[in-house]
Amino acid sequence: MHQAQEHDRVLLISPDRKQYIISLQRGMRFHTHKGIVDHDDLIGQPLGREIRTHLNHSFMVLRPSLHDILMNVKRVSQIIYPKEIGVILLKLDVSSGRRVIEAGTGSGALTIALANAVRPAGKVYSYELREEMLRIARENVDTAGLSDYVSFHHSDIADGFEQSEVDALFLDVREPWCYLDRVCPVLADGGFFGALVPTTNQVSDLLAGMTRYPLTGVDVMEVLIRRYKPVPQRLRPRDVMVGHTGYLVFARKISKMLLDPRREKRRGSRNRVRI
Amino acid sequence: MHQAQEHDRVLLISPDRKQYIISLQRGMRFHTHKGIVDHDDLIGQPLGREIRTHLNHSFMVLRPSLHDILMNVKRVSQIIYPKEIGVILLKLDVSSGRRVIEAGTGSGALTIALANAVRPAGKVYSYELREEMLRIARENVDTAGLSDYVSFHHSDIADGFEQSEVDALFLDVREPWCYLDRVCPVLADGGFFGALVPTTNQVSDLLAGMTRYPLTGVDVMEVLIRRYKPVPQRLRPRDVMVGHTGYLVFARKISKMLLDPRREKRRGSRNRVRI
Amino acid sequence: MHQAQEHDRVLLISPDRKQYIISLQRGMRFHTHKGIVDHDDLIGQPLGREIRTHLNHSFMVLRPSLHDILMNVKRVSQIIYPKEIGVILLKLDVSSGRRVIEAGTGSGALTIALANAVRPAGKVYSYELREEMLRIARENVDTAGLSDYVSFHHSDIADGFEQSEVDALFLDVREPWCYLDRVCPVLADGGFFGALVPTTNQVSDLLAGMTRYPLTGVDVMEVLIRRYKPVPQRLRPRDVMVGHTGYLVFARKISKMLLDPRREKRRGSRNRVRI
Amino acid sequence: MHQAQEHDRVLLISPDRKQYIISLQRGMRFHTHKGIVDHDDLIGQPLGREIRTHLNHSFMVLRPSLHDILMNVKRVSQIIYPKEIGVILLKLDVSSGRRVIEAGTGSGALTIALANAVRPAGKVYSYELREEMLRIARENVDTAGLSDYVSFHHSDIADGFEQSEVDALFLDVREPWCYLDRVCPVLADGGFFGALVPTTNQVSDLLAGMTRYPLTGVDVMEVLIRRYKPVPQRLRPRDVMVGHTGYLVFARKISKMLLDPRREKRRGSRNRVRI
Repeated sequence: MHQAQEHDRVLLISPDRKQYIISLQRGMRFHTHKGIVDHDDLIGQPLGREIRTHLNHSFMVLRPSLHDILMNVKRVSQIIYPKEIGVILLKLDVSSGRRVIEAGTGSGALTIALANAVRPAGKVYSYELREEMLRIARENVDTAGLSDYVSFHHSDIADGFEQSEVDALFLDVREPWCYLDRVCPVLADGGFFGALVPTTNQVSDLLAGMTRYPLTGVDVMEVLIRRYKPVPQRLRPRDVMVGHTGYLVFARKISKMLLDPRREKRRGSRNRVRI
Repeated sequence: MHQAQEHDRVLLISPDRKQYIISLQRGMRFHTHKGIVDHDDLIGQPLGREIRTHLNHSFMVLRPSLHDILMNVKRVSQIIYPKEIGVILLKLDVSSGRRVIEAGTGSGALTIALANAVRPAGKVYSYELREEMLRIARENVDTAGLSDYVSFHHSDIADGFEQSEVDALFLDVREPWCYLDRVCPVLADGGFFGALVPTTNQVSDLLAGMTRYPLTGVDVMEVLIRRYKPVPQRLRPRDVMVGHTGYLVFARKISKMLLDPRREKRRGSRNRVRI
Repeated sequence: MHQAQEHDRVLLISPDRKQYIISLQRGMRFHTHKGIVDHDDLIGQPLGREIRTHLNHSFMVLRPSLHDILMNVKRVSQIIYPKEIGVILLKLDVSSGRRVIEAGTGSGALTIALANAVRPAGKVYSYELREEMLRIARENVDTAGLSDYVSFHHSDIADGFEQSEVDALFLDVREPWCYLDRVCPVLADGGFFGALVPTTNQVSDLLAGMTRYPLTGVDVMEVLIRRYKPVPQRLRPRDVMVGHTGYLVFARKISKMLLDPRREKRRGSRNRVRI
Repeated sequence: MHQAQEHDRVLLISPDRKQYIISLQRGMRFHTHKGIVDHDDLIGQPLGREIRTHLNHSFMVLRPSLHDILMNVKRVSQIIYPKEIGVILLKLDVSSGRRVIEAGTGSGALTIALANAVRPAGKVYSYELREEMLRIARENVDTAGLSDYVSFHHSDIADGFEQSEVDALFLDVREPWCYLDRVCPVLADGGFFGALVPTTNQVSDLLAGMTRYPLTGVDVMEVLIRRYKPVPQRLRPRDVMVGHTGYLVFARKISKMLLDPRREKRRGSRNRVRI
């Protein structure tokens, strides 16, 4: 049975489905539109249950899941959403023990998901040029209790990455094709490359750029989630859905030196790398 | 640099994109439609590169990713696909150290993904009634090198689960609503429930059944992946896409005893649980 | 060159893309948030051009298309949208000269599209029980200038339809399966049946009901439109899309008397009609 | 009651759902994998019923709908599909009496749909450079009984169109942006422009080209149809769906002379026309 301790973060869900993640501190009170919750009523108590505010409204108190945390990070930029994160983790083969680079850090949503996945032996190296962004991301990762698994770098990736032989590398930057000469040398042979871009023009530019590098198994996709109203007798999709967040591009680095130069040339002229 | 050892499993990709996962054994030869590959030419050599068959065709040799493994398991039943698995792992909050039940095991694709995610400290408890299925699944999990993280149970879940206080439980069975009375007692308060069903009728039946249990935050969805042909000058989606695999239903268990009985009754009559 | 006449309806589009359809009358003025337009400045003038309001804002003046009219009907109920209407017209084979029944009339959007398609020799018979709804629909059809092609019936379709041997019949009612015994007798052999229902439960109920009637070639579908932001250098789908309007069910009536009774029985037990 | 006459075209549907459209001729026999059908058994008989082959297999005999005809045209090129055609007819406001240009003709599927929609008073002007293609299209349009409503032009649209003041114009060519200087002069003010292109690169090129012309209300979209297996107790989408056919781009021509030149310039620099 999970019991809430002081400094633990808990998820509160109001009767009208508003979500709040708070950090428990003795003596503190949390004020909501449905009444007040005393932190002291939560500390030492089991999670996964309902409590009452002083106005007698019922709130759920839960341990926040990774999904809850991702949807509640403090945002200073467009975050990468769980629907893409699930696919990114699988396509980059991110799991316990892996070493992964990402750039830019942004608000840190993907950073948190990567850090959670490489625990306990792996590491995430996260690069961000904008100082303010980095500050928020650090705060978000810290709040998620995952700081031990992330190393932040305040630098321009045009100057390169400090690591080598990493298992995977993900770019969430405006012009990912500009950094492929920095990406390939730090990826281990067989390592996984991924990028997220919002427009088709960027997909074309990235794919064109990738043909000049030893990247294979190129996979371009969109992830669409269609949610349903959970009413058994009147089951139907929700009226409105997210129409677009971005295009995902994945590939895998192979050892360049063993490639036949003539074949490489031919492939370049076909403008895509195909295994 | 990853080097292949005897008994390692490696992924071979042919020039026409056929994929093979083989287990390396000294003295063995792998016969393909594009020529022969000697295992001895791979053992002790780095991965993430190209090799030549005796017919001089070029094959990629790579460490298989979890995604590769999932797409290449030996199948005796419809498997759960990576597009759903990514979402399942996130929505069930499966990560290092978690204890998770799944039923039925089927071919073991989800088992492998769960086992990989709970490493090194967690455990997957996988239930399957059909003996032949269980045998194949064990073989698939073993081949994936994840047997240490899975405990198989050859029993009927109508008789209940042996574990208690598990973090998450996933049902991939024909009539998941029949087992909710077994599911809820073994889930920890705040634990995550999920199910995959192929038809809308099953979604309705499951949702109707769930209203009688302390399950909250009900979320019903489909995951659609739209793949593109990776040609920079002629970017377009592939002509054909997977139109359907299944509907995912998720919820979270809350402690029943703290619920207001009158409110519970009202919710039942509305046929859905809403926070 | 189209010139606007008095009593013509014209489409005005404001700089911020608000659309207004107005009926021209000498001496009238049209007040908008961007200034005033004098009807007299439009009458006798060509359409398909820009005009200026008294505040010097530029409005487009166009002949309203059927699509414009459909999106601007006065609504007292959920209308059937153009994305479904295009498919309905094709699947019901509605074209010049056809006789078509629809029920219920609703706000009359589909009525207008059907009437426009059967011109000049065909006829639409539209049934509606709710008097207020019928009044609005008549007004909408009249405003669209299509009254000559529509015959309205203020009656309950449970009492049957007055026509016979119609080419097509479309139901937009809550329980279309309740009226199949009324539908089949009035459809010509080979005639087209269609229905729109919002939930999967209704689709199941309708399909189950249809198995008892000589309806063949059953086709169930959803129509999804994905719109893009029309920016050449940053092409991408719009952030939000319509996730659901309804499910369309189509079939074709065949002559019952020539069916082999034994085969009919077998089909019933399989719960679907398959050719 | 529709009765089949000699020279009528009828749709035959086999028990395994194969479709054949045949033209009835006295004394002829139609050979299928399920047995022989005598044309004489169909002539003078009602449609919309079942018949038996000499092997006692049951075939449906129906009047072919426009949809049936479109799906059964003789193809020498990728045709435009009904899911797009429904939207094209609505967005181009094609109905009885309209004058419409299309290029290229291709196999004539869209030609047939346009001709059917403009009946009886309108006309379709169809341009095609490839002689063989034009021959097949003529045959398809003739077979559909719509030759009276189509005027074919064997010429290069780079040399311009012979008509003027047409209500709508649709381009299904590889580089539609190359012909906009020919398109705009022949469209009536307020006339509708549309194009179908398969790749995102073409959408970008077309949108960029359109900014230099008085085209307004630009609308870019994809149409996705999701079909369901029509089984009431096991309702679910089909496993495989069409992932892509093309992108549709629509706009409306406005009178150029009345545009404020300064404003026109500004809009050009924003690379898109917005009303």
